[in-house]
Formats: sequence, C-alpha cells, structure tokens
Amino acid sequence: MTNPDFPTSEYEQRLERAQRAMQAQGLDALLLTNEADVRYFSGFRTLFWQSPTRPWFLVLPKSGKPVAVIPEIGANLMASTWLDDIRTFSSPHETDDGITLLAAVLKKSDRIGLPMGRESTLRMPLNDFKRLRSALHLSEWVDAAPLVQGLRMVKSELEIETISDICRIASDGFASAADLFQEGQTLKEAFRAFRIELLSQGADDVPYLVGGAGQDGYGDVISPPDDRQLAAGDVLMLDTGATLNGYFCDFDRNFAIGHASDAARRAYSTLYVATDVAIATARPGVTCADLFHAMADVIGTTGSDVGRFGHGLGMQLTEAPSLIDFDDTVLTEGMVITLEPSMEVADGKIMVHEENIVIRDGPPTLLTRRAPPDLPVL
Amino acid sequence: MTNPDFPTSEYEQRLERAQRAMQAQGLDALLLTNEADVRYFSGFRTLFWQSPTRPWFLVLPKSGKPVAVIPEIGANLMASTWLDDIRTFSSPHETDDGITLLAAVLKKSDRIGLPMGRESTLRMPLNDFKRLRSALHLSEWVDAAPLVQGLRMVKSELEIETISDICRIASDGFASAADLFQEGQTLKEAFRAFRIELLSQGADDVPYLVGGAGQDGYGDVISPPDDRQLAAGDVLMLDTGATLNGYFCDFDRNFAIGHASDAARRAYSTLYVATDVAIATARPGVTCADLFHAMADVIGTTGSDVGRFGHGLGMQLTEAPSLIDFDDTVLTEGMVITLEPSMEVADGKIMVHEENIVIRDGPPTLLTRRAPPDLPVL
Repeated sequence: MTNPDFPTSEYEQRLERAQRAMQAQGLDALLLTNEADVRYFSGFRTLFWQSPTRPWFLVLPKSGKPVAVIPEIGANLMASTWLDDIRTFSSPHETDDGITLLAAVLKKSDRIGLPMGRESTLRMPLNDFKRLRSALHLSEWVDAAPLVQGLRMVKSELEIETISDICRIASDGFASAADLFQEGQTLKEAFRAFRIELLSQGADDVPYLVGGAGQDGYGDVISPPDDRQLAAGDVLMLDTGATLNGYFCDFDRNFAIGHASDAARRAYSTLYVATDVAIATARPGVTCADLFHAMADVIGTTGSDVGRFGHGLGMQLTEAPSLIDFDDTVLTEGMVITLEPSMEVADGKIMVHEENIVIRDGPPTLLTRRAPPDLPVL
Repeated sequence: MTNPDFPTSEYEQRLERAQRAMQAQGLDALLLTNEADVRYFSGFRTLFWQSPTRPWFLVLPKSGKPVAVIPEIGANLMASTWLDDIRTFSSPHETDDGITLLAAVLKKSDRIGLPMGRESTLRMPLNDFKRLRSALHLSEWVDAAPLVQGLRMVKSELEIETISDICRIASDGFASAADLFQEGQTLKEAFRAFRIELLSQGADDVPYLVGGAGQDGYGDVISPPDDRQLAAGDVLMLDTGATLNGYFCDFDRNFAIGHASDAARRAYSTLYVATDVAIATARPGVTCADLFHAMADVIGTTGSDVGRFGHGLGMQLTEAPSLIDFDDTVLTEGMVITLEPSMEVADGKIMVHEENIVIRDGPPTLLTRRAPPDLPVL
C-alpha cells in the first residue's frame, strides 16, 4: 500500500461498522457506485471520476474485505489501497462494461443493499443496471442510503483531523481578505485571487467556490463570479468548499466593501446570534429539527430559499443530515455539520452565515475560525 | 438575462437541433438530470452540483422552450438564463423532491427520452425515479443517450472558441514547466505550483489534475500527487482538465528530470509519431475506429490499460465518442476530440501523450500547442 489517506485500521473499522449494520438488516452484500462511497470503504482516491465514461463498483460482502470491480485503467491505483480482491474489465467496452463480472461477485447474494433514497445517485448507466438486475433476478434489492449515510455522518478522529486542517487553511485564506478584495475589482478577479490564496495556504483543491455581491446582500448563494465590479456599499460573500486529502470544508464569509448599510449590519448580527444559539444548542441527543428551530426562532422566519440551515460535511461538500424541520436525525458525537442560517435582507437580497462544527460530549468544537461578530468592512 | 456564457441564439440552435432529432425519433419530451446536459440547453452554470443533496430537472418539449423544474435555491440563477418557464420546489423536501411537479410537466408525453446508455447517469435517487415512472405509467421511456451525445459531440464555433481559449491557457502553463518543476520537489508541491500557474494564466478552475513520475515512465494516469520527491531520470507527467466558462481542455505533457533513459526517449518519440499520424488521419468521414487503428499501427500494440486512444471533449473532461476499435462514429466538422496514444515503456511503466483537436473540412485544427518532438529535459 503506497498511497493511503488513512492507516488500514481506519478502513477495517469502517467495514466492521458497515457489516454490523448489514447484518442487522439482513443484507448479504452492499453495492456502491459513487466516488465518495467507493472511497470511504477502499481508500481509492482520484479525480478521474471527472470522466463519466467508465463505471466503478465496490461490493461489501457480509463478511470479508470489499471486492473492487473496476476498469483496468484503475488497477494500479486500486492496488495501492488496502484491498486484495480487485477484478478488472476492459473499459469502455462494446457490450459489457463490467456487468458480467459484477454479477458474478453478487450472484450468491439474496438481499443486496444499494443506495436508492434521498441524496443518492446510481453512478452507472440505467441500461446496465437493468441488465444487472436481470442477471440477478432472484435477488432482492434494498435501499441502503440510510445505512451508508448513517455510517458516513459519524466521523472518526482521523477524518475530523483532516476536516479541521482544511477548515484552518480556509480560515487563514479568509484572514487575508483585506489584501485580496477591493472596490473596483471584478468578482472574477476576486474569486481567482481567493482560489490561489487557498492553494498557497495548503488546500489541495477548491472544487467549490461560489458567492455574490450587492448592496445590502446578494441574489443567491450558488452563482459563479462574473465581470461585475465590486462597489462601495456592496456586501461580498464567498462560500468555499476547499479540499485536503479528499475532505471538504464548507463555509462562507461576508465582507462590506468601503461601508455597510444598516440593513446589512442588522442581518449580519442576527445571523451571528443565530449561529451562537446553534452552537449553544448542538449537543448529543438534540435533533437536526431542534437545531433548525433554534436558529429559525432567532431569525423569525426561514426567510430565504436556501431551504435548510446546515448539513453534514465530509468527503462531500454536503452530506446527510439536513438541519431542516423534518429531519429528526439525533446528533451524536463525531458528527461534523455546518451551521448555515440565512435570511432575506431586503427584497430579493439574502445573507448567509456558515460555520463548521463537530459534535462532542459537551459543547461542539468549532472547526472554522469564528466569523467576527460585526460585519467586517474592507 | 445577466449571466449567460453564450448569446441566446446559441441555445436556440441547440434546442432546434435537439427537437429535430426528437421528432425523427418520435419523442414527445426529453428529460435531463445531469449538470452538463442541463447546462447545455439552459446555460445554467454553477458549481453547486458539487452538492448531491438536491435533484435538478430540465424537460425539452417537442416544441417550445425547455422547462426547468428545480429547487428554489436555484431560482435566481436560472432566471438569469434564457428560459422562461421555471418551476421550483422546496428542497430538500420530506416527501416530494420535485417529483409531483416534474410528473405534471411530463404528463402528456407518450414517449419520453432519457439518457440510459453508455456514459450516462441518472442524477436523481432511484426511488424517486420509480415514483416518477409510476406517476407516468402510460409513458414509454426511450434511451436518449445517443441523441444527446450526438448533439453535444459536434461543437458550435462559440464552443470551439472557448475550448481553444482554455487549451491556450494550459499550453502557456506547461510552457512554464522549467520554472515550476525541479528535482527534489515533491509531486504534491509540483502539482500545487502547476494548479496556481493555470489559475494565474486565466483558467477559472482546475477540476482535473492527475499524473505521475518515475524512471522510464509512470504506473498509471489517474493518481493524485503524493510526497514522493522528483528524482533525476524521472519522467514527470501532468494531465490537466482546466476549465473556462464551463468548458474543459484535457491534455498532458511529459518532462524528464535531469536526464532521460533511452527507453523513455524512444517511447516518447513513438507516441509523438502516433499523434502525428492521427492528425494526418483525422478528417470528416473517417471513423473513430479508423483513427484508433492509425495510432495502434504506429505503437504496434494497444500496450496499456488506458483502453482507448482519445475521446470527445467539451463541457465534460471526457465525452463521446471514444477512439477505440469498436466505436464506428464518423468524424464530422466541429467535433472536438483528444488524441491520447499510450504505451508500456517498461514492465509496469507507461507513457501517455495527449493533444486536443477540432475536426475541420481538411486538416484538423490543433487547439493545444503541440508538444515538442523530443522528450524535454528540465
């Protein structure tokens, strides 16, 4: 093993937890097709998933180590993980992109778990999945999204350490705001400068960087930067998901350019207090809905179209659970979540705050360097 | 419309081509769920797809403009595109993540096209798709992967211009190699320096940067960088998919550190000649299989586990078609493809070359600045 992000014991523990959950649900195998799920149990990390051409499969049997069924192009890298059983197929293939091989691995499994519920995607062509089901027509397929999400939402100390490191790097990046952002600069220039700053501070990559700027607030929180110039009185927001060893931070910061409107200052303070209240509320045993309501009570309304006030965080920018009124997931030690209250500042203008925390026995640990209590003016 | 990557006429032409193809296949609607497909017809561009939480839908009717069925969080950005009919749902949702709304849009469609074949993924939970099919139980579902891929593989002049721009930026980045890479540097440091260089040269983002280094060649072409130090005699390869306005380049460059082995020099020359032959062969009317064989004949064997010698390129790092022996796609003007011959240099060591071209009436246009004919030594 030459390139693991974690020692083998980490993966052994993940597998053990998974197999215990599989046993409780009577699953003979778990089929995973997505980057994060495959990496979680194998340690296989590559940006090659950017290419949609080839499918990748990982099978967790009810006992024994995971089996990788992958394109030949990945054989060398997969061999550097802790896995032993790596079966490869020629890909792209004219007629059979790994389906016969995968069906052989799964053929004795009566009940197969596959993530099919909320926030899951089957990363393989539907036609191939149809062929697989037909080859395994005696097997029962069970939604394993809750199982996999339930495992992944509770982080190990090694995972927390990695997320903490990338949160520190991005906090250092935001600390350079006064040097990076100024009136007259286009949003594109500002975003490029920040991306370079994050890499220089030690981030591996910045897969997510969105935001906006405007008087009082911004129109949404998902837009790419454009050629609009930063103007005095603008509130500039950058929301970043930078990565380190395949783990994300996800938080934003707001800055006023030159001066700030009263409406912007007030909204900022309200969101700051809502975040404080959330930090004071986030304890093992509290539900995600409780935490949502604690923030909503401060804000007075759900107030924006963001739809929730935070979410899980780890190998993906957003993971289960959601801080929203219908999510009754109980917080437990080791969960890493974002606190992300948002509100409307003026008609069509919103503001969003975001911090990352880990749930502990007692007060949570803040992974991000806390935003200042008053809207900072650059 | 405030934030379009292209003028409305570009999207009108894409829609017109799509509706012509839909009519030929008797499709009443086309359902799209993936980032690239949704963006191709709407102009909706955001990194927010990094979040797997929410589904996004675009429906192309057999006549009239596309209909967006999306989470509320995207309403503001979608309103900046050329679309008029934007229907939003609260998301995440406890029970209905847009399915009722989507079913209403599709309800009069007898034949619905959905990409289900090679290289396609349905980006929504399988359980939700099951509910959708059940709500539309009278509709017939038809694989639309060939239709959508067929449209997207032939680029407009505006698309070619964008890809050409990012190829130029990355070519400029590689031209700085002597300043960026040196003996003793770790691969992580080398990759970080190159990523920063690409951003500084004008790339929006570098979603893909992989490679390797080793005596004679490298173990694979998909690995992330590690802490191994570059040593004299290493062949260093970086393969980058940088982006500009949502379009990719995808090519690599090889460099010898200090000095190069004869085996590495010979392999480099062979791959250079194979690429030259491919450039001389790539003409409208030639098939992808022909182009594959033209390169394979030079190399003498398919020789590595990469599996193909190039592919389409555009909004995704890799797109249809594939330069492989079973792909009989006929090259036509406007196709942008990579030429990517690879071979084994020594036991377990490979080398890969890559250039990006656009098929023209006559010789193709090279979008990348051609690699030097001999393995450059840094």
